[in-house]
Amino acid sequence: MSKLFMFEKPLGMRDTLPELYETKKRLRTEMADEMKQWGYQMVETPTVEYYDTIGASSAILDQQLFKLMDSQGYTLVLRPDMTAPIARLVSSSLKDAAYPIRLSYHSNLFRAQQHDGGRPAEFEQVGAELIGDGTVSADAETIALMIESLKRTGLEQFKLAIGHVGFVDALLVDIVGNKERAEALRRYLYEKNYVGFRSHVKGLKLSSIDKKRLEGLLKLRGGRDLFNDAEKLVESEQGQAALRELRELWAVLEDYGLSSFITIDLNLVLHMSYYTGTVFEVYSQELGVPLGSGGRYDELLQQFKRPAQAIGFGVRLDLLAEAIGQSAPIEKRTCVMFSRERRAEAIQNARDLRAEGEIVILQDLAGVTNVDQMSEEYDEIIYVIGKSKQGGPADE
Amino acid sequence: MSKLFMFEKPLGMRDTLPELYETKKRLRTEMADEMKQWGYQMVETPTVEYYDTIGASSAILDQQLFKLMDSQGYTLVLRPDMTAPIARLVSSSLKDAAYPIRLSYHSNLFRAQQHDGGRPAEFEQVGAELIGDGTVSADAETIALMIESLKRTGLEQFKLAIGHVGFVDALLVDIVGNKERAEALRRYLYEKNYVGFRSHVKGLKLSSIDKKRLEGLLKLRGGRDLFNDAEKLVESEQGQAALRELRELWAVLEDYGLSSFITIDLNLVLHMSYYTGTVFEVYSQELGVPLGSGGRYDELLQQFKRPAQAIGFGVRLDLLAEAIGQSAPIEKRTCVMFSRERRAEAIQNARDLRAEGEIVILQDLAGVTNVDQMSEEYDEIIYVIGKSKQGGPADE
Repeated sequence: MSKLFMFEKPLGMRDTLPELYETKKRLRTEMADEMKQWGYQMVETPTVEYYDTIGASSAILDQQLFKLMDSQGYTLVLRPDMTAPIARLVSSSLKDAAYPIRLSYHSNLFRAQQHDGGRPAEFEQVGAELIGDGTVSADAETIALMIESLKRTGLEQFKLAIGHVGFVDALLVDIVGNKERAEALRRYLYEKNYVGFRSHVKGLKLSSIDKKRLEGLLKLRGGRDLFNDAEKLVESEQGQAALRELRELWAVLEDYGLSSFITIDLNLVLHMSYYTGTVFEVYSQELGVPLGSGGRYDELLQQFKRPAQAIGFGVRLDLLAEAIGQSAPIEKRTCVMFSRERRAEAIQNARDLRAEGEIVILQDLAGVTNVDQMSEEYDEIIYVIGKSKQGGPADE
Repeated sequence: MSKLFMFEKPLGMRDTLPELYETKKRLRTEMADEMKQWGYQMVETPTVEYYDTIGASSAILDQQLFKLMDSQGYTLVLRPDMTAPIARLVSSSLKDAAYPIRLSYHSNLFRAQQHDGGRPAEFEQVGAELIGDGTVSADAETIALMIESLKRTGLEQFKLAIGHVGFVDALLVDIVGNKERAEALRRYLYEKNYVGFRSHVKGLKLSSIDKKRLEGLLKLRGGRDLFNDAEKLVESEQGQAALRELRELWAVLEDYGLSSFITIDLNLVLHMSYYTGTVFEVYSQELGVPLGSGGRYDELLQQFKRPAQAIGFGVRLDLLAEAIGQSAPIEKRTCVMFSRERRAEAIQNARDLRAEGEIVILQDLAGVTNVDQMSEEYDEIIYVIGKSKQGGPADE
């Protein structure tokens, strides 16, 4: 073994120690329990997929994909997201199930890192997909489920920002005239580079009124009042339709009693690929980055020859754990420490205590080199050592 | 997307649909709960490790490793087993924890397949490792924990076969004289190719007495009585010491009340690499292959510069699910189907039912293309459609 690598993990790869494990388990279970009650059923897909099936459809940059080759020379990838694998699954393993289909998952995703900069190359995502339902009710259900799942974990201070791909696209094309020119502006929004956006707008050959409209887009963040401003800003029917959808969505989220968690953010642009309608991101007060996101992707399924409107969300469990803090309950641990002559008695002790629900470490004294250091780890130590106090002979 | 791969998964990769997911979850949870009560703490390690750290120390054939390259040109592997990663973790992330250390895990392992022959390329293993304790008590604890974890899942008809690397090695070297010649015989035992073993023995230049001794090894399977036969067969102190260990181990397993699950199999040889003492395999009546195995590996940790005696086991969750059958509880699912005018009322209905612990799918009628097919999936359907029966106006 080369010495360099003896204790090393690849860039961005991490061990999960017991305390964080228990925290993540608690968060995953709370979210999964909520999703289950809403009728979402858990599935798993392979860690490894064909590049041509999943890698190419995913929203992840090619250089962030972990690629490998199979024995037949085909390129494989470590699953970079779950939306494309679930679309594949719905079109194959579940091809006979009727739409709408509600699925959920908790899966590790992979993003190759180029530097040792603290970003994880593997992280767990918990999410849900509602496939085959294009109604605003479906949008609202997905968003409400995301909020209720997060509330159930104990997360308190968070906001969900809602935007609409159709609105941004319509407004940009309205003003700059074609998709290519709109794309440059979209990219600034995607990067949340508003300084860059403004400076790019300044350089465009547009009337000062149109430049004002583009800058006005940046102000479209807040409550339901901004729908009125937004309606004045956009001309096309596509843009107006997007706003009607969002108005209805807001009303349904009020019916859910969740509008206090919502902000409208009409310049929200997620990644560049498959989203087609409503998009959203969740921010917690504790973190500088969104801990989850989602959106409508009505065109992805037809790539897998089972066309369907669909919407889903994913929450990063590592970021949620960071926002909430390590929160697994601390449980009492008892150690039954024995010498060999009284082993049978110690085994019986441990069994009895475990039957009462206790956590019991059964430890042969001969297996311990540092009793003091070991003892510190337990809340209680029961010594079963030396002559049996019960008078009778030990079993062995 | 190339048409060839549209619905395809790489060789040996599988989707897990909801029913199997719930079965696996139940089995994993039962085993994890048992291990937790014995003081084993859950950890996770990365899916991807350096080849030099983990791939080279693992017991898996090189051609079965999924290999990939990182951006710096180092070779990575998808985790082929958990023993080496946990040895790395104990020597790095947990280097300050006192021995003995009790850890558990449920992790996906990877074995590249060359053919589409039904063997999985990715499967989940649930296991435990007891590190830093070389006593027979530790051997017995590990075996008892494996048996109790399996009993807790509901598995009934199973046997755990125990062998000892030290005994097989001593007997073979006793007779054939050196390690190289012993290795050929060990390989037949590893492959459970007893016909090959016998025919190989016939061809050896040995006395007929020694040939009988080698054939006698194949008969050493059964209860504790065979220790007497085994003692006559082996001459070296190493072989006798192994038998003394096994006799003590049997006695402790009697103290655990578990000897009815045990058979002794003195020609049991697991894979070729790191095991050094007691080894064991679990067979269930339902399956032709062992569903789990384990053993003592007292030399692996020193490769990671934190020497320790250690023992552990792993159970393949896919095989356990196959042995037990799909056994997740079937839960009642109710669908609240609504028309848009009564959406607010339907949302309230669903919320109330979920608060009572029910699983409730809330479905906008406008999102369903085939109401009949969808309806079949639910135990109960509540229609909230048309004019409100409560007389009052709908909320919206």
